[in-house]
Amino acid sequence: MLMNFLEEKILLDGTIKQGNILKIDSFLNHQIDIDIIRQIAYELKRRFKGVEVTKVLTIEASGIAIATMLGNLYDVPVVFAKKSETANSTDDKYVSQAYSFTHKKMNSVFVSRPYLQASDRVLIVDDFLADGQAALALMDLVHQAGGKVSGVGIAVEKGQQKGGKMLREMGCKLESIAIVEEMDWEKQTIQFREQPKRKLGKTNLKKK
Amino acid sequence: MLMNFLEEKILLDGTIKQGNILKIDSFLNHQIDIDIIRQIAYELKRRFKGVEVTKVLTIEASGIAIATMLGNLYDVPVVFAKKSETANSTDDKYVSQAYSFTHKKMNSVFVSRPYLQASDRVLIVDDFLADGQAALALMDLVHQAGGKVSGVGIAVEKGQQKGGKMLREMGCKLESIAIVEEMDWEKQTIQFREQPKRKLGKTNLKKK
Repeated sequence: MLMNFLEEKILLDGTIKQGNILKIDSFLNHQIDIDIIRQIAYELKRRFKGVEVTKVLTIEASGIAIATMLGNLYDVPVVFAKKSETANSTDDKYVSQAYSFTHKKMNSVFVSRPYLQASDRVLIVDDFLADGQAALALMDLVHQAGGKVSGVGIAVEKGQQKGGKMLREMGCKLESIAIVEEMDWEKQTIQFREQPKRKLGKTNLKKK
Repeated sequence: MLMNFLEEKILLDGTIKQGNILKIDSFLNHQIDIDIIRQIAYELKRRFKGVEVTKVLTIEASGIAIATMLGNLYDVPVVFAKKSETANSTDDKYVSQAYSFTHKKMNSVFVSRPYLQASDRVLIVDDFLADGQAALALMDLVHQAGGKVSGVGIAVEKGQQKGGKMLREMGCKLESIAIVEEMDWEKQTIQFREQPKRKLGKTNLKKK
């Protein structure tokens, strides 16, 4: 199986911690390898080719770098939803709830109303997809505003957790650049899910 | 006085809330106007011309967008320090303390040790500078690692608060693109500090 740039980087610089925790904060969510983030943005834009995007939405904090590079490529505004332990919907903001399995608590996730509109076609992006709770909350915010979700773009999906399956079964256009299928802490091995080649329909190379 | 792009944008899209709070979250720290962030990055790079930069450092969350665009321009890694209510220095991380006047509490600010090195020449960036507590904490982290601070680049400095004066008196190379000198909530007016033209020494235009 031929690896893509992100799978290769994970094998090179990621570490597996006890409890099957994948640590990639040397290049994605603490220190940022700017070239990797750039490639992630290019690759997501390529995978969502032909899809209308008027806004990029993510959630603070670690999704912001990817969202910024993607907003830069699309030349559209970026919005980052904020987290709070307590937030209620008001005239000012849309609020949704996301349970964090990592921190074992419910978080409120909100966006000020003017920054999501009914006319928006929103590409939701994040560094990780695990249980899908954050993605669902972001989708809910877009829908509350009357907007449409163009798709969900993820750097690293944890394929053993239920988020990806759930979103795909909902009919959501989900693209994850790397999907971790299995990890083994003792052997320090990672297995990625082979992703289908996208059908491009008829090839349209020009005759020479 | 001729305004620069950011001062102009603040007058156009910023609002002054009661208590002299400048709200610019429509383009800088909730929704991000990607073109403004790009210009901020270009302008900071211009102001730090000739200064060695091996890494861009900011603090989560709202500094990340500017830091990412700047890392993209310099083609160097970006690190964002994390906040925590409780964090102690360990073998794993450098920790400093920053008092938040907004939230009236002390925050721990930390970076994992491998991501700041003695060889690093660090450009610290943030969206706002007020009391300078976050900037001081970030400088402290760089110094703990044995690295050097190349400078501090800020989008909007609150000129009435003490951060800017303190950093300049320390001899820190501080560049703020817009410095708010006075705000008046009742009149809804903002006065920016006039910034000195930078001396370029001899002009070195080529003779034709």
